[in-house]
Amino acid sequence: MTKLISEESKGVFVIMATPFTDDGALDLQSADRLVEFYLEEGVHGLTVLGVMGESPKLSLEEQVKFTLHVLKRVDGRVPVVVGVSNPGMDNLETLSRTTMDQGAGGVMIAGIPGLKTDEQVETYFKAVADRLGEEIPICLQDYPPTTTVFISVGVVNRLIAEIPHLRMFKHEDCPGHRKLTRLRQAPETDGTRRVSILTGNNGLYVPQELARGADGIMTGFAFPGMLVDVYSQFQSGKAEEAEDLFDLYLPILRHEQQFGFGLALRKETLRRRGAIASAKARDPGPRMDARDHAEMDGLLGRLRRKLVDAGHRLPSGL
Amino acid sequence: MTKLISEESKGVFVIMATPFTDDGALDLQSADRLVEFYLEEGVHGLTVLGVMGESPKLSLEEQVKFTLHVLKRVDGRVPVVVGVSNPGMDNLETLSRTTMDQGAGGVMIAGIPGLKTDEQVETYFKAVADRLGEEIPICLQDYPPTTTVFISVGVVNRLIAEIPHLRMFKHEDCPGHRKLTRLRQAPETDGTRRVSILTGNNGLYVPQELARGADGIMTGFAFPGMLVDVYSQFQSGKAEEAEDLFDLYLPILRHEQQFGFGLALRKETLRRRGAIASAKARDPGPRMDARDHAEMDGLLGRLRRKLVDAGHRLPSGL
Amino acid sequence: MTKLISEESKGVFVIMATPFTDDGALDLQSADRLVEFYLEEGVHGLTVLGVMGESPKLSLEEQVKFTLHVLKRVDGRVPVVVGVSNPGMDNLETLSRTTMDQGAGGVMIAGIPGLKTDEQVETYFKAVADRLGEEIPICLQDYPPTTTVFISVGVVNRLIAEIPHLRMFKHEDCPGHRKLTRLRQAPETDGTRRVSILTGNNGLYVPQELARGADGIMTGFAFPGMLVDVYSQFQSGKAEEAEDLFDLYLPILRHEQQFGFGLALRKETLRRRGAIASAKARDPGPRMDARDHAEMDGLLGRLRRKLVDAGHRLPSGL
Amino acid sequence: MTKLISEESKGVFVIMATPFTDDGALDLQSADRLVEFYLEEGVHGLTVLGVMGESPKLSLEEQVKFTLHVLKRVDGRVPVVVGVSNPGMDNLETLSRTTMDQGAGGVMIAGIPGLKTDEQVETYFKAVADRLGEEIPICLQDYPPTTTVFISVGVVNRLIAEIPHLRMFKHEDCPGHRKLTRLRQAPETDGTRRVSILTGNNGLYVPQELARGADGIMTGFAFPGMLVDVYSQFQSGKAEEAEDLFDLYLPILRHEQQFGFGLALRKETLRRRGAIASAKARDPGPRMDARDHAEMDGLLGRLRRKLVDAGHRLPSGL
Repeated sequence: MTKLISEESKGVFVIMATPFTDDGALDLQSADRLVEFYLEEGVHGLTVLGVMGESPKLSLEEQVKFTLHVLKRVDGRVPVVVGVSNPGMDNLETLSRTTMDQGAGGVMIAGIPGLKTDEQVETYFKAVADRLGEEIPICLQDYPPTTTVFISVGVVNRLIAEIPHLRMFKHEDCPGHRKLTRLRQAPETDGTRRVSILTGNNGLYVPQELARGADGIMTGFAFPGMLVDVYSQFQSGKAEEAEDLFDLYLPILRHEQQFGFGLALRKETLRRRGAIASAKARDPGPRMDARDHAEMDGLLGRLRRKLVDAGHRLPSGL
Repeated sequence: MTKLISEESKGVFVIMATPFTDDGALDLQSADRLVEFYLEEGVHGLTVLGVMGESPKLSLEEQVKFTLHVLKRVDGRVPVVVGVSNPGMDNLETLSRTTMDQGAGGVMIAGIPGLKTDEQVETYFKAVADRLGEEIPICLQDYPPTTTVFISVGVVNRLIAEIPHLRMFKHEDCPGHRKLTRLRQAPETDGTRRVSILTGNNGLYVPQELARGADGIMTGFAFPGMLVDVYSQFQSGKAEEAEDLFDLYLPILRHEQQFGFGLALRKETLRRRGAIASAKARDPGPRMDARDHAEMDGLLGRLRRKLVDAGHRLPSGL
Repeated sequence: MTKLISEESKGVFVIMATPFTDDGALDLQSADRLVEFYLEEGVHGLTVLGVMGESPKLSLEEQVKFTLHVLKRVDGRVPVVVGVSNPGMDNLETLSRTTMDQGAGGVMIAGIPGLKTDEQVETYFKAVADRLGEEIPICLQDYPPTTTVFISVGVVNRLIAEIPHLRMFKHEDCPGHRKLTRLRQAPETDGTRRVSILTGNNGLYVPQELARGADGIMTGFAFPGMLVDVYSQFQSGKAEEAEDLFDLYLPILRHEQQFGFGLALRKETLRRRGAIASAKARDPGPRMDARDHAEMDGLLGRLRRKLVDAGHRLPSGL
Repeated sequence: MTKLISEESKGVFVIMATPFTDDGALDLQSADRLVEFYLEEGVHGLTVLGVMGESPKLSLEEQVKFTLHVLKRVDGRVPVVVGVSNPGMDNLETLSRTTMDQGAGGVMIAGIPGLKTDEQVETYFKAVADRLGEEIPICLQDYPPTTTVFISVGVVNRLIAEIPHLRMFKHEDCPGHRKLTRLRQAPETDGTRRVSILTGNNGLYVPQELARGADGIMTGFAFPGMLVDVYSQFQSGKAEEAEDLFDLYLPILRHEQQFGFGLALRKETLRRRGAIASAKARDPGPRMDARDHAEMDGLLGRLRRKLVDAGHRLPSGL
């Protein structure tokens, strides 16, 4: 039974790592283990083939294979969003249809390099949405640091108006707090349909983003259970407690969010936590050295002590 | 008697080189000579402190000094446009007011790096225009290869509507033929006020741009007299003859338009033509070596022969 | 019988368009026709899956399928270079091995975005070359405008020294004349092994590049026969005649080299010349409008007249 | 009595904001107050005209005026580094000489856009250093996010070897931990002369950077006293206590480091702390709205509570 994303989607959608064996082959056994790990952490959704999923280093065939495997394992327990961004619309469409047919909950689409003006951005997304058709729920990803595509508030609102199946917006423009507020208020100020807004930016600004009205978080932080707790406390009106907890993890979260290199840090953390067998990132990919490992030891050790001091439960594997 | 730019401005506005002595000081004597050279070539206007004028390598004080010197020399014979783009609006305003007070014909303004969405671009130019006030005619420069600012047709049209003193548009988006056509037709299709459109792009597409309705050319090609002749013939309905002439110069024009290095080639050509004393570009700037000189010799020799074969007059210094 | 590229490779390697049907499917019938068309034009080699071949819009499976089809058709008549650049090394290796096994003459590899310093660039290419092994001849593509990877003369020379199977260098840094000269002279000045140097940059500077010692041209200009003639005349010591011929085509060549949009112009020219059935570029791709067609009519008409006037044979389909 | 920067420089060099009145004029009275504020916070040095100093929005004349004013106020109490980066070397030299003559402690120089390969980067910095001469101590700024210039470890080491007056390196490549380690170890591994290494990156990674051997921090964080304390504790062997203190400020430090917008946040914090009269950033510059102010209230309130809970002294104005 497929769970689709919708305007009502909320909570923590974790960006799933793509596990490889040490020689770079897809490790589907670890994929199974990782799915269970994420679900035990309490996440409300999964996103596969995001930037952190090393999607461009997989062939289309591998993208399909990996996603179908994950979908089968998840088996409808939470919605699964598939990152389908691709330089060509034909491949984008193929990946979307194939995975939606097998139970994906929606597709996430970012802009492609070369889109500059509002008109170009809008035209592109409308063309993609038309191709996919109204049956396929879309999450619009606004991630300029990687895509170099900037999407104005006006364009987002127009796309929401023109594409009824645009259900979710992934916010990671940066600095983007004001944009988030404007988008969140657009239903009141502009009569725009309300969609789900999840925030990315590696989670660096979660408390501020929740306070500004985000419906949840979509990021690949390797302790997603913390984000789940922060989200829940925030929902229960305990914003300060939520932020206290968040701040305890902030040093390690800040460490993990290093652009590019963060992938190695996150995969290694997942490995240490027992969620995947190898921290391998496909070539060309970042690799940790001994100094990096010692640094991580130190940061994780500090986190453990702080959590104990504050009387919090320790996450698995810490 | 100041000549201002206006919606009716037409013809060839040459981007003036900024002459330096061999040790990099402003060479105002050469500036005088260069002004006379350009006027003898028949240009309809001058633009100082453009990209080719090495403006960012001059201090604000030098920019003012150089411009006032040129204005005095030109003495109202043709309109002089002043490139006033600056990271800060205060300096932009200072340069604009000081030079307009002394007879400049208008100011040219490009976007500054960091402007991404239509809203950001529009907001910036409106803020600048408000600062300057309606007395100062503006030429909006659309030059994404250097500025990384992309200005959509919609934004241009809105700016024309909102800024009554926006009188001229310098087109050098690339590829930009279709954009030029849309902008040219905007008075009919959108009711936009008609402004003067001059094209840049180093002149590489002049015949196509005139055919699509451009009012003239604004570029730093070192044989501006050719562009004047092409423009005149085109105006007289002799489009094919105009293009024949243009094509004779195309090999050298294509050579000169090499990004960055073209500055050295143009200054050397101007030096060879007797218009300036030194080809020096301020540091850090491009410099020709012996091989480059030989290459230029070859290309200029070929141009001479082709012109003679076709029965054309030789430009001075060739 | 496979023809491999080598340090001795010379002449015109045309970048082959990838023909699609009007709905975007691979058109293998047109691929056959196009191969014959190029061979009739006299090219010395073919390059498939280059930037102009819309490679990123094909899935890996399609890339393999298309290349194997072309290889079968060419059947060893000329060497075929395969563009294998890919965000992931695994896919790069798969495409390389699969096509080399079936008769490809070598692989062309450009840098991937994110490589900045000399050390990063060198490390990347060495890792790729090690993966492929000495059996696979490599053409190193230096194309910063698209890749944003800048390869210094020092890095090229070190890569030539360290990778014995690096056989060919595709030069399209721009402005790049001086770099070409330095690379060409490196065997004398630095004792670097001499490799084949073909130049790209859409052919805009062919006469200057041949004069500076390039071994040939690798570009997708839709009249490759002209480049073959220019190359041959230059080889026979008739440099001025070669340049005369080149200059006749320069207006249309300059028109075609518009970044991005040029793809539409070239495919349409190939269609008009009878080489492919449809000018379709895969989405998202450029499309000509009526005004663009009229403009092309004008430019091709002018070319025809100039060729007739000069007593040259007309290329097929003109 | 001038304090020059040297290979032995250590501690916290704060990047000084440039105070303006509400209408954008230089506010020299606030400059005086701000100097005293920084010195009371215990900083070991000042850096004027950095990116955070809005240097490009000042004219050369204003840059000189502001710097001389600050130098007079500081009066040799700590070394003052002057950011002299400029598109033109002539202006760079003028600003350097004028301010060094009046007591500056050294100049900081970043690369200029357009420098790509190691050779280009090295050539540029050597040319600048030659211009300035051995009397002027140089801090080499490695700040790719803003400059788009990437400086490899090899280039840094070569520049240290070739420029005896290169005394300090400002590290803010990111992710850059490994680079920092390699540079710090270069005296042992490569025999490179040891220079002072201060780290930037808005201070986001201070504990990790000190652990990897940085000599200090150069950033514009609006609570520089915390950085001074962290640095001192680290020096006294209390690394964990230092990091505990740092982590208390991390939420606000992370908030302040938002690219571009951080300038508004820092100036407002300095205003609230009584260090400057107006938070004005010159146009075009970021501005806080009511929501941004409320957000800052919340973050500062949390900081106050955490500091009190931990028994730390409250910084002035909190």
